[in-house]
Amino acid sequence: MAPTKKGILERLNAGEIVIGDGGFVFALEKRGYVKAGPWTPEATVTHPEAVRQLHREFLRAGANVMQAFTFYASDDKLENRGQTLKITGAQINEAACDLAREVANEGDALVAGGVCQTPSYLSCKSEAEVKAIFKKQLDVFLKKNVDFLIAEYFEHVEEAEWAVQVLKASGKPVAASLCIGPEGDMHGVSPAECAVRLVKAGAQIVGVNCHFDPMTCVKAVKMMKEGVEKAGLKAHYMVQPLAYHTPDCNCQGFIDLPEFPFALEPRILTRWDMHQYAREAYKAGIRFIGGCCGYEPYHIRAVAEELAPERGFLPAASEKHGMWGAGLEMHTKPWVRARAQRHYWENIRPASGRPKCPSLSTPESWGVTKGHSELLQHKEATTTQEMKHVLEMQKKAKASA
Amino acid sequence: MAPTKKGILERLNAGEIVIGDGGFVFALEKRGYVKAGPWTPEATVTHPEAVRQLHREFLRAGANVMQAFTFYASDDKLENRGQTLKITGAQINEAACDLAREVANEGDALVAGGVCQTPSYLSCKSEAEVKAIFKKQLDVFLKKNVDFLIAEYFEHVEEAEWAVQVLKASGKPVAASLCIGPEGDMHGVSPAECAVRLVKAGAQIVGVNCHFDPMTCVKAVKMMKEGVEKAGLKAHYMVQPLAYHTPDCNCQGFIDLPEFPFALEPRILTRWDMHQYAREAYKAGIRFIGGCCGYEPYHIRAVAEELAPERGFLPAASEKHGMWGAGLEMHTKPWVRARAQRHYWENIRPASGRPKCPSLSTPESWGVTKGHSELLQHKEATTTQEMKHVLEMQKKAKASA
Amino acid sequence: MAPTKKGILERLNAGEIVIGDGGFVFALEKRGYVKAGPWTPEATVTHPEAVRQLHREFLRAGANVMQAFTFYASDDKLENRGQTLKITGAQINEAACDLAREVANEGDALVAGGVCQTPSYLSCKSEAEVKAIFKKQLDVFLKKNVDFLIAEYFEHVEEAEWAVQVLKASGKPVAASLCIGPEGDMHGVSPAECAVRLVKAGAQIVGVNCHFDPMTCVKAVKMMKEGVEKAGLKAHYMVQPLAYHTPDCNCQGFIDLPEFPFALEPRILTRWDMHQYAREAYKAGIRFIGGCCGYEPYHIRAVAEELAPERGFLPAASEKHGMWGAGLEMHTKPWVRARAQRHYWENIRPASGRPKCPSLSTPESWGVTKGHSELLQHKEATTTQEMKHVLEMQKKAKASA
Amino acid sequence: MAPTKKGILERLNAGEIVIGDGGFVFALEKRGYVKAGPWTPEATVTHPEAVRQLHREFLRAGANVMQAFTFYASDDKLENRGQTLKITGAQINEAACDLAREVANEGDALVAGGVCQTPSYLSCKSEAEVKAIFKKQLDVFLKKNVDFLIAEYFEHVEEAEWAVQVLKASGKPVAASLCIGPEGDMHGVSPAECAVRLVKAGAQIVGVNCHFDPMTCVKAVKMMKEGVEKAGLKAHYMVQPLAYHTPDCNCQGFIDLPEFPFALEPRILTRWDMHQYAREAYKAGIRFIGGCCGYEPYHIRAVAEELAPERGFLPAASEKHGMWGAGLEMHTKPWVRARAQRHYWENIRPASGRPKCPSLSTPESWGVTKGHSELLQHKEATTTQEMKHVLEMQKKAKASA
Repeated sequence: MAPTKKGILERLNAGEIVIGDGGFVFALEKRGYVKAGPWTPEATVTHPEAVRQLHREFLRAGANVMQAFTFYASDDKLENRGQTLKITGAQINEAACDLAREVANEGDALVAGGVCQTPSYLSCKSEAEVKAIFKKQLDVFLKKNVDFLIAEYFEHVEEAEWAVQVLKASGKPVAASLCIGPEGDMHGVSPAECAVRLVKAGAQIVGVNCHFDPMTCVKAVKMMKEGVEKAGLKAHYMVQPLAYHTPDCNCQGFIDLPEFPFALEPRILTRWDMHQYAREAYKAGIRFIGGCCGYEPYHIRAVAEELAPERGFLPAASEKHGMWGAGLEMHTKPWVRARAQRHYWENIRPASGRPKCPSLSTPESWGVTKGHSELLQHKEATTTQEMKHVLEMQKKAKASA
Repeated sequence: MAPTKKGILERLNAGEIVIGDGGFVFALEKRGYVKAGPWTPEATVTHPEAVRQLHREFLRAGANVMQAFTFYASDDKLENRGQTLKITGAQINEAACDLAREVANEGDALVAGGVCQTPSYLSCKSEAEVKAIFKKQLDVFLKKNVDFLIAEYFEHVEEAEWAVQVLKASGKPVAASLCIGPEGDMHGVSPAECAVRLVKAGAQIVGVNCHFDPMTCVKAVKMMKEGVEKAGLKAHYMVQPLAYHTPDCNCQGFIDLPEFPFALEPRILTRWDMHQYAREAYKAGIRFIGGCCGYEPYHIRAVAEELAPERGFLPAASEKHGMWGAGLEMHTKPWVRARAQRHYWENIRPASGRPKCPSLSTPESWGVTKGHSELLQHKEATTTQEMKHVLEMQKKAKASA
Repeated sequence: MAPTKKGILERLNAGEIVIGDGGFVFALEKRGYVKAGPWTPEATVTHPEAVRQLHREFLRAGANVMQAFTFYASDDKLENRGQTLKITGAQINEAACDLAREVANEGDALVAGGVCQTPSYLSCKSEAEVKAIFKKQLDVFLKKNVDFLIAEYFEHVEEAEWAVQVLKASGKPVAASLCIGPEGDMHGVSPAECAVRLVKAGAQIVGVNCHFDPMTCVKAVKMMKEGVEKAGLKAHYMVQPLAYHTPDCNCQGFIDLPEFPFALEPRILTRWDMHQYAREAYKAGIRFIGGCCGYEPYHIRAVAEELAPERGFLPAASEKHGMWGAGLEMHTKPWVRARAQRHYWENIRPASGRPKCPSLSTPESWGVTKGHSELLQHKEATTTQEMKHVLEMQKKAKASA
Repeated sequence: MAPTKKGILERLNAGEIVIGDGGFVFALEKRGYVKAGPWTPEATVTHPEAVRQLHREFLRAGANVMQAFTFYASDDKLENRGQTLKITGAQINEAACDLAREVANEGDALVAGGVCQTPSYLSCKSEAEVKAIFKKQLDVFLKKNVDFLIAEYFEHVEEAEWAVQVLKASGKPVAASLCIGPEGDMHGVSPAECAVRLVKAGAQIVGVNCHFDPMTCVKAVKMMKEGVEKAGLKAHYMVQPLAYHTPDCNCQGFIDLPEFPFALEPRILTRWDMHQYAREAYKAGIRFIGGCCGYEPYHIRAVAEELAPERGFLPAASEKHGMWGAGLEMHTKPWVRARAQRHYWENIRPASGRPKCPSLSTPESWGVTKGHSELLQHKEATTTQEMKHVLEMQKKAKASA
């Protein structure tokens, strides 16, 4: 533990920029430690060296927050996703906290414990039951004394409010981050209203993560900020978007893109795209700026490099990176040397190398977002029930097409 | 050391498939440990945990070869590239061998020591001087008792021959891999002739690496194989291509693409592209199949998964990967579940998410590849001299345009 | 004259579909009779055979309206655009009416006389002055006894109202069509409000033409319809869009696209795109459905073919066109014969054949180009007025953004 | 007749540039007078005004050759294509000659009569039978006293030789143009050998037309020229390519593209592409430069404008066209005025406006479509012969691949 470190709220209240880390599930999937589909984090127990190394890389890239790798590590999710190892949710969550703390202590980073949406909510369990799930994870976070808490990756603001209420009771600072875009949550609640409700539930930091590309996420957080300010409330703002360009998403984000999750490569942002994102987020008044799925350490480094003038320093990993391509200055080919300049990289329009592929896709879905609320009203005890429902709606949509 | 392991030639002679690892410089650049531009591997000394972790991921993904991370670690290169740390080439090379060996011992992998093209050759040092450079690296490899040797990333077959001659003297098996495409080396020597010369120089394995995408590299190796067979010689074949689609390259490969090296993201191959590559390489008779710049562990895993029927087993990392998207079978959305099938991923045409970008670029260069031989005839002692020359040619090219 | 023909309002009141013709300026520019830039229609006098032939082709394609080719044929425009021939506006307008009447008489078509926006309005001439311009053209239309009148291609609803007022006084039916999209006119007046104002000014038919692609135009007319209905008024609706895909337009339409007007080719709609457009327009309740710049006769034929079930007949030109590619049924190659089906053409995603070009452009506009203020200093009085106008609008647009 | 006009060979021998016209079938299909599929030219009889007008537009655009619109007007083709009108081939051919002559007399143009490949050849009729077909068309051309003859649109050099032999007997100058690309004719005879054979058969002008884009066609004609010169022969060269970009074609040209013939729009060349083509053709030593399918009059005008310095004059239609966009100089928007310059249009990369479409397609062809053999079983004798022919060719192609 580093008792002298400033807490998350002290930093944000002082106007500091807090840089988040990147997404662990996608990065570790590519490294061979997370299974796409279940996306569960048992690697904290089985391959701690891999999780530790990724933490270190984000720390080195400039991250001030080490999120314990507890995504989808609620007991109901682990069960649901066919987690067959003899590892309990508590073990995963504890190991995650220890790894995050170990690396946080190597630099100026805080440890965050996070909860996310549950199958229990989607299958219409009661508020008490859902809250019990969150409480179980929270117990671990308190035992391990994390620095603050994040309720993230919620598609339904109601469930996020429940999570905030549970976390808030701990007395730790609470951030709340929805996986929504400018069109709002899955019931169509606008970003502005979502933010107001989360602040009222007790969140000191609100924002969005995961489902959309950086510019879309910044736009959604702007809408949140306007809502909070209009309501006469006060909050800090966070954003942790995808590292994928998704201009063609519908309201449910990149999951509905045909390329999800195994053919998203052509959409990966360059480091220069990240400069634009960091600047835009900063200009929007967001001060907790990080990443989610698709982020590699160099993406976070680019965020830190763009904001170096404001922060007054470069991250450790910049020792291995010339700003704006400066590392090419000594290349033997003059036309490669000519690329060692800001203007060049800021204006590049990178080719896909795939002339038989389109630029944009058509998102898949039930065709309409109508019927979401209907779905939820009728939702029942099991996921199978939910599926039945979805299939029914699909059938109807087809019939009316 | 694992004395019971079969050597590289025993494996290849027995008809086994040997899976290579991926490229370290690009992967570690993204992780924050290698600087683009110099691309030197001092991280073996300064951040061994990062290098070790990457080795482990490739091993877990199915690689049978751990190439010691010694790229560009010849003394003349290190000097040239402004390597200012108080670390000698010998230290880097030794640490690299130790790390490779440590991880190789954790599984069924061999350690390879590699040399690559030198500034000394390009600045017209004598054969003796150039060979002395290789010898210095070889001494470390012998001291560390690597399993076999690779002369790789050579643009000029003559320099590669010199390297093979030096390595061959050690008695270890020698592989030789040029960074050329179907148009041949920088003097226009065809892949067929290059291969014949390398085999005659003593290489038991020949092939290409780095500068081109998988299908282009496979094509070049096919030409090598035809050449070797036509000459009545015998060899094994290897291929370690880029993980970037580069149909728009000219003869000098991806370095001349305007996106090199900081905006190549949209070109990254998917895992499904890797299946196609692995199959194509296998059908071409290539049995040492790996990767170079751009390869992440999941790319190597895809190679291992494609060739699992031939090899009879899956790599360790496949415990975290459903074949052909099978991990999506339990997704809550039916349209995402529908993606859990081979047909779907084999036929996907992934969008770039970048409608303002083209599909192909125009390679930069002196406009013409004419004049290469001229350049080399006149090449002089220093790199500055070489640059002067290139600039002159550029001027001429402009004048005649 | 064909005294037995039903008038435009009789047709629309009876629920008939009225098919418009396509754009003359672009079609005749490609044929060599109109100059891009001035876009003036003196060809009615100098090359009547070319204008007559184009009328005939649209008639044959199914058009029920022959718009006399009087675009930009107001005296102030002709002067302004450097019309140096010894041909007066009256001569052009008269010849245009005669040609339209001659061909209309060959089939079931009506003749429309049209006025469009004037330089006088943009340079802030008085209402009386601007109206005098319209009156002069109207005099010709009355002398030639056209069947109805169209005020079209107006960016400012105010000027369009003035035109409608002038035309209305004649007692002939009046249609009013703005060159706006869903964002409204150049002062930001919404399509709904524009439509209400035009109906109140006396237009019996309202709609949009020219600046945007079909789907965007249909969307704008839908907004008009909603506005008119909400206001408790009644009108008929028309749409005459571009035959270019322009999803990347800003509020000023295709003129701001970098490709305007000489590199729009890759955006040209196919006949199958036209089927979609015609169906969508029909479903939106629009009954006067035609085209503007980029439309060739086969585009109008596609509109007529799509709506043949509703109209009960095919156009004459369909004798030379198999529905949905049926003409390919006897092709010698089986894979070409396989294209003779609706499903095939409805789902085709045609390639551009231009891998070095993007899918979308960035519109140019005020503010992007450096040196505007400088430019203003060097401009004479009239144009300065116009610029002032533009700047004012820009200011307002910014304020409301 | 214009007895003072110089003949085609006098012009070419004098080093003059002869500009051809554009393709009639595609242009008239879009205007509503030719049916895609049969592509037969009965419009010369049924709608002479439409054919006359198109001739006039090409003349005005700068064409020196009026090709009588006799494409596919051999008796066997007309029968085959289900020509049900009571119009004979002779009537069509005579009317075509009269129209071409009428317009040629309005300017400095020659009349050419053309024959093209026949179903008789494809169904393995004898040389005598095939030649009789050509002879029948030739009789009309001689009766109508055309200025020269063209054997064009042949996929098999053997049939083209037969045509040249027939035409040559008339004593008129003979041009021969194959619809092949750099890979040669459908039996794999190289462009060089094709050209030599055609010259030996008596053609004074040789070249290619139709199946490929301009740059591909120029490349093929260059290969012809090299072949003819290497053989110590002498000829003039012609090229009449598509106005579509087809970099993705296979050896059979645009017919195998999935977009043929109803979704080729995004591939249409701009006028600026035509400038490049005209210059390239000229530099290659080609002096008879025209167009084929997809060419509109403004495309031919662009060819004439590019070569105006060499020819010493502009075509009539240039009175309606500012060179390099000069017509925009007086546009009211400064950013549109800024487009009035050569540099701008030469470097534009026009967007398709279709982000869901790819840049390139995959050509369809034999072997791709399932069920071919089945298909063959159900086919009657004649067509089976043709298929056999195709299959034979395919076998050969495979053997040589």
